[in-house]
This record gives sequence, C-alpha cells and structure tokens, in this order.
Amino acid sequence: MSTSDSTSSLPVTLDSINPKVLKCEYAVRGEIVNIAQKLQEDLKSNKDAYPFDEIIYCNIGNPQSLGQLPIKFFREVLALCDHTSLLDESETHGLFSTDSIDRAWKILDQIPGRATGAYSHSQGIKGLRDTIAAGIEARDGFPADPNDIFLTDGASPAVHMMMQLLLSSEKDGILCPIPQYPLYSASIALHGGSLVPYYLDEATGWGLEISDLKKQLEEARSKGITVRALVVINPGNPTGQVLAEENQRDIVKFCKEEGLVLLADEVYQENVYVPDKKFHSFKKVARALEYGEKDIALVSFQSVSKGYYGECGKRGGYMEVTGFSPDVREQIYKVASVNLCSNISGQILASLVMSPPKPGDDSYDSYMAERDGILSSMAKRAKTLEDALNSLEGVTCNRAEGAMYLFPRINLPQKAIEAAEAAKTAPDAFYCKRLLNATGVVVVPGSGFGQVPGTWHFRCTILPQEDRIPAIVNRLTEFHKSFMDEFRD
Amino acid sequence: MSTSDSTSSLPVTLDSINPKVLKCEYAVRGEIVNIAQKLQEDLKSNKDAYPFDEIIYCNIGNPQSLGQLPIKFFREVLALCDHTSLLDESETHGLFSTDSIDRAWKILDQIPGRATGAYSHSQGIKGLRDTIAAGIEARDGFPADPNDIFLTDGASPAVHMMMQLLLSSEKDGILCPIPQYPLYSASIALHGGSLVPYYLDEATGWGLEISDLKKQLEEARSKGITVRALVVINPGNPTGQVLAEENQRDIVKFCKEEGLVLLADEVYQENVYVPDKKFHSFKKVARALEYGEKDIALVSFQSVSKGYYGECGKRGGYMEVTGFSPDVREQIYKVASVNLCSNISGQILASLVMSPPKPGDDSYDSYMAERDGILSSMAKRAKTLEDALNSLEGVTCNRAEGAMYLFPRINLPQKAIEAAEAAKTAPDAFYCKRLLNATGVVVVPGSGFGQVPGTWHFRCTILPQEDRIPAIVNRLTEFHKSFMDEFRD
Repeated sequence: MSTSDSTSSLPVTLDSINPKVLKCEYAVRGEIVNIAQKLQEDLKSNKDAYPFDEIIYCNIGNPQSLGQLPIKFFREVLALCDHTSLLDESETHGLFSTDSIDRAWKILDQIPGRATGAYSHSQGIKGLRDTIAAGIEARDGFPADPNDIFLTDGASPAVHMMMQLLLSSEKDGILCPIPQYPLYSASIALHGGSLVPYYLDEATGWGLEISDLKKQLEEARSKGITVRALVVINPGNPTGQVLAEENQRDIVKFCKEEGLVLLADEVYQENVYVPDKKFHSFKKVARALEYGEKDIALVSFQSVSKGYYGECGKRGGYMEVTGFSPDVREQIYKVASVNLCSNISGQILASLVMSPPKPGDDSYDSYMAERDGILSSMAKRAKTLEDALNSLEGVTCNRAEGAMYLFPRINLPQKAIEAAEAAKTAPDAFYCKRLLNATGVVVVPGSGFGQVPGTWHFRCTILPQEDRIPAIVNRLTEFHKSFMDEFRD
Repeated sequence: MSTSDSTSSLPVTLDSINPKVLKCEYAVRGEIVNIAQKLQEDLKSNKDAYPFDEIIYCNIGNPQSLGQLPIKFFREVLALCDHTSLLDESETHGLFSTDSIDRAWKILDQIPGRATGAYSHSQGIKGLRDTIAAGIEARDGFPADPNDIFLTDGASPAVHMMMQLLLSSEKDGILCPIPQYPLYSASIALHGGSLVPYYLDEATGWGLEISDLKKQLEEARSKGITVRALVVINPGNPTGQVLAEENQRDIVKFCKEEGLVLLADEVYQENVYVPDKKFHSFKKVARALEYGEKDIALVSFQSVSKGYYGECGKRGGYMEVTGFSPDVREQIYKVASVNLCSNISGQILASLVMSPPKPGDDSYDSYMAERDGILSSMAKRAKTLEDALNSLEGVTCNRAEGAMYLFPRINLPQKAIEAAEAAKTAPDAFYCKRLLNATGVVVVPGSGFGQVPGTWHFRCTILPQEDRIPAIVNRLTEFHKSFMDEFRD
C-alpha cells in the first residue's frame, strides 16, 4: 500500500480529478459493504472471533448470490447460442428441452450469419427487438415498435444514456423520488445536473402526491432550474410500493402538461406480491389516455436482473423510447453506437424474459413451477420479514407490495444519535454497522437513498432463501433488543 | 415517422439536449454504415437494381460477422458456465473437451455460490482477476496485481471511465494520436474535455515522434489547457503500425517527465503479422526501465473483441490500472460500482483469452490450429489487400504490421474534390460512398479518424474471409479505375 508520501509525485490526485466523480455516491456498494467484504475475508481464518459464521448480503437485489437458481429454459437457450455446434449433436436432444432447441434455432436465424460473437446493430439484434416488442404488446394491449427498443447491459447504462442526453449543466434538473435507488442520484451527479427531490409519503404507504411534485417543480423553476424529466420507480425501490393506476394517470398528465420526459423505472414489473395491486406500464396508462407519440416523451427501463429470473450477472436490459423526434432519436442512437452494442447473451436473455415458454411448450410446466415457486416464496419472505420488523421496538415497516426490499423506519433513541455523532457517522449508518458486526447481516442505511430529514431507515432485501429467514429474524430481533437496551433514553 | 410539425410540442429538441452529445461523432457506425444498412434492406427485394449481391462490411473490426468462427474451447467453457447442470450429465463428457469441463469447474469454484447469474465484485470476480494477472505476468515477466484489474463490458466502458475521471472541463486535455480510433474523440467530447492532437507520420510508417508530442503538449499548455493523459494505440488503429520498444521507452519517459497518465490501448496485442515486430506492453517497458507504481500512472486496455478470438458480441475486457494513489483508486472503484459489474460471460472470456489451453491439455492442438489458422490468414489477407491498394493509381498504403486495418491514402484528383464540395461532403466520404454504391464494400472515410489536412484516406478491415478477398480486390480495382477515369484531371 502506498503512503501519501510515496504517491505525492503521481499525476492524478483527488484535487485534480473530475469533481463530479467525487460528488457521486452509491451506497448500495458503499462503506458498509466494504466492511462486510473485509469481515468475510477475516472469517475464513478467524472463525471464532465472530458471533456469526457467514455474511448475509441483504444490501443488494442479487437473488442468485443468495442461492436462487436460474430458470432452466433460459440457461438452456443461452448455452446453445454460446456453443452452437451442440445443435448438430444427437445427444443434445437428450440433454436439452425441445423448445430450448427450437428457440435457439429461431434466435440464431435472427442473427446475421448466426454469429453470436459479432457486434450487433447498436440498438440490439433486430429479431430480438421484434420479440421484445411483441412481448410489450402482449403485456399492454397497445402496439410497440422494435425501433423504439434499445438493448443495454442491464438498465443502468440506459439510465446513464438518458441523463447524458438530458443534462447539460446544474441548471438542468431531474425530479427524483426520495427515497430513491441511488443510481439516479449518482448518474445525475456524474452528468452534472441537479436532483430535484420529491418526497414519497411514508404514512400513506410511500404515496406519490401530484401536489408535492408540482410544488417541487415550481420551487426548482424559481431557482432557475429547467426540469427536464421525472423519474418514477414502480414498483418502488427501496420503498416497495406499487402505484395505483389512477395515480399513474395523474403522473402521465402532469408530465404532459409540464413538458417533462417520464423516465419510468419498471424493472420490478414482475415483482408484485399483493392481490390488491397490479403492475401497469406507464406506456399502457398513457396510451389508454389516448396520449400518443406526440403527447408524451416516455422512456421505460427493463432489466433481466430483477423479476423472478434475477439474472443480474448477465447484464441484459432494454429501454423503450417513445415520444422523441427523429433527430433527437438519432442522437440517442449515436451515443449507443459509441459503445457498439450490449452483450449478446444479455440481449438474448432480454428477449427470453419478454417471451417465456407458452402453454404446450416442452418446458412450460417446469418453467411455471420455477417461476411461481420463486415469486410466491418472495411474497412469503417479504411478509415474514415485514412482520418481524414491525414487532421490533420503535420500528415501523410498510408492506412490500412489490420489488425486492423492505425499508423500515427506525426511531432511534437520542443516546444512539449522540453515539453516532461521536463516531462521526450518520445515525442509520451507525445502526447498520452495529447490525453487521453483531449478526453478519448487511443492509444499507436509509441515508444512502434519501429520507425525510430527522427520520432513519435501512433497506433490506427479501432475498435470503426461505429456510434461512427464521435465523435472520432471530439474529435481527436479538440485535435490536440489545441495541435498544444499550441506548434507550 | 413524425413530421417536425407534429413533434413540435415534444419536450426534447436538439436545442435543449446536452451540446456535448451533439458534438460527439463516431464515424465507424456513422452515415456510410446507415446507407449500407438501407442498401442491404433494399437488396432483399430489389436484387437486380445493384451491381453487387451483398454488402461487405469492412467498416468495423467485427471478425465473426464476416464468417470467422469462434474458438471452440472458449465457447465450450461459456456454455458449461451458463448451463451448469450439464456438468452433472454423463453425456457431457462425450460432447465437451476434458479441459473445458475442468476449466468450467475451476471457474465455478471461483464464483461465490457458483452463481454465474449473480452480480460480481464491481471489479470482476476475484478468481478470474487472479487468472488474468497471472496471464499478464506470463506475458510481461513482471508481477501483476489482481486488485489492479477492472473487468469491463469490452474496452469502451473502461476508456469512458478514465475520461470521466480525468476530464472536468475543456481546460483538461488528452493527447491523442491523429489518425485515432474515434472512441477517443467521442469520449473526450462526451466528457467535455479537449482533444490535443499529435500526428503520426505516414511517411515513416505512422511513426510517433516524441518531439511532436512535446510540441503539441507545449502548444496546449500555452492555451491554458492542462494535459492529463496521453493515448497511445499499439498496435495502431486505424494505422496498423507496431511500435518499436525503443520508441515505447521514450513514450514512457515522456509521460513520467511530463506528469501524464499513459492510456495504453493494447487491444490488438495478439494481432502482429510481421516477423520484424513484436508486441511489448507499456507496463513491461515501464517496469524494465525500473519505473514502479510511484513513477508512472499507466492504464492498459484489453478486449476479448480483438486478437484471434474476435468475440465482439461478448463484450468482455479489462483495464489494468497502476500508479494511482489509493484514494484515487477508490474513486475509480466507486464509478465502476454504480454500474454494479460487467457481464459474467465476458468476464469469463477475458480470463480465458489470458489463459488459453496449454500443451498437454485435451484442446491444445485444436486450439493452436484454430488460433494459428486465423492469425496467419489475417496476415495473408492484410498483405494481399495492401498490395492491391498500392497497385491503384494515386493510392499508397503502409503495411499492416498489426491490428485489423489498412489505412490507404488516396490522392484524389481536383475534379473529384470539387464534385465532393458540390455534393456538400468531404472528398474521402465522397469516394467511400461511391465505392459503396458501386461495389457494396463498406469502408470508413479517413475524416472519421482524423488526418493531416488536405490528405485523404479510408480505413478498410482485413476481415473478409480469404476466399472472398480476390473478388473484393477485383471490385475495388475496377471501381477505382472508373472513378479515376471519371475525375482524372
């Protein structure tokens, strides 16, 4: 490790780098995760030094890292497309489902020269975009155009691309929910714009009030900020709420009236756990209002990392871009083309999640069993963790209607807040570090997502496998009791 | 298609978007490629309207799009890592090479929970970075640290990441070769910095003169620009030269003396075709000069898209970052973490290309035959095309010592230059469009890469398969003759 002395002659210093990079924060992989990684290393050689024997990463929506298995059909198709000569072997028919073989052939025929190792069109392979557009049409009941689809390495690069397009300086603002997924604040910081916050109302299950949107918009405008877009995350991250259709209609109308691009983060569209809520895409809501291409500019983000599939490592995703003029669309295409294309396996997977096996297909029954097993287990885990959190002293937790997270509020005793101040850390980060050191459970402080000043939260995924939930609940409950005993006023 | 009238109420216009996006240019997928794509569409229904029956894309280094087959061992390992339950089937031993099965197990054991569908560490899976570091050590004879490796979705995002770090405003400059691969100019434009050009000398085989670097550096400084880094592409793109070790030593010394980060684009390190030249990494050259971590800040970019493997669609790559202080390194990690991680198949492939089969392995002989077959064929194709180009009236073409391109200079007749002016296009673009319309061959005008003012070039890949080269040479020769006949002064 270099000391500051030995590095003093190096050309790059914190003072000389882009200040936007310094400003950017991303708590989901921040300080607490770094501590956890060090603990995990130390655990290997020093098992007896800790009151736990493993680190449980509840900091990030990464299902397969916690034991969720991939959907078999998807992986069959990917393997066949990677190693296409398998398709010529007779043994393959014994090893792979019939529909995975059919699908692999269909996909290969959509790729010029069947070359899965070639750069594709910068928006993604046309045939795969056709499949995705057909999937969107089936979902929404309104037409979708494959030329509106931009396939990307997960949703994150798509968000960056839109921020890069929309933000020229800090005089350009983006309305963002608070709490929010910190990709948005990080991306706005990196591209030098202003985050214009609007608060979700915890008391009404993280409700989104148009009147608050309007107030924040006007306040930003009065400061000379041109607000370019509104970010809505539905189902919510970290907050887990699923918007009512009525509410979505008001949001769409608001964007049209105020001339805002609607950036709709819909990556949790498959993750809805309560019978009284249903996912509606913003595009469907807009089209049902008879708002067409020239009424509203709307970008919908989707990812293969979420849903029941949770294929985070594949980095597949897309954005559907509607309501932009051809000349602006050309600029989006140009920026996409500088990176040539997104990875082909991720592109294929994005087409598969939008077009999974259908009744009658060889894989259909096993696919449905895998899918429903994962989603119903997630719903169960969400409820168990929610109930456990609500039973803790000073903790209240809204239900996870969707997504993969709980975002409980902790009413921290004054003595804990003072102890955090003495340790020069935010009170919720203080709590989360204590939790990590006592239990090995990694969660992210609410301050990483934003929260009403003076309130404290943390985000915890619902992703540990079901058989481990009781132990996590026990550890959490025990820790919280002793924490409160130590700091209770 | 919307008309400007019907889109006038849309919130986003060319006037309101980020001007840096407008400024960015990327000719490799620019206007000529768009024309080619339209021709290709039209060819399907309108075959008789054209003097050719297919479009041959020589605009981009995309070997598998032109029929190059992937290396079998690499694809076997990827398929096994995608669909891991294959490893439990007895038939797999008949279908896959023994060493691909061993390697897949080894890789799976390096991934926590064997979860190839999980986000990894934001720098990439540690075990794969170990393998890559060992590959770099074997290549260079100097140590490499896995903690210096950042795995990325191809080399492009790595270049963007460094530009984002180093550029705060147009007062920050990057020394860039002219001609250059336009990722650099595009990325500098998108991140709002200044490109400080230095010219490669065509007369000496695209030689790089330190005196010219110095002159350009001083000129930029006199304009108040702080030059942060020097980009060197070796082997050169689009120019194909391979730097002599002596020249590299001078470049390293220059960067140390002038406090510049050396951004070394080494993605063509496997592509050297002439016996009198050899690839040396800049890190090896620096370490051989006994320059350590605190003497020089050096970033080396590598990609799975190039080499003999040409796995462009997999989007794998890495950068090796040395000579940065821990606090700056932390900032690079943070920016990487905002996008979570690069795709796992690309990560695996990056480890494979840095650690291919070894003597004694089941795949070794077939792997070597594939590899040598591809590289020797590329060398042959480069020579054939080079000779053909040099035989054309008014065309001179340096040899492709390495990389995948020829960059011939065309001395265009004055009448052609005037015709181009009348058509409101650059003379080299005029020539390339004529070439496309007459032959279906897509090349990129030199103006997309930069060139000495008043000189005209185009970039043409050496990637069409060998059996198609004679036809391409014929078409090219015939076209050039008739072009010169039309415009000869």
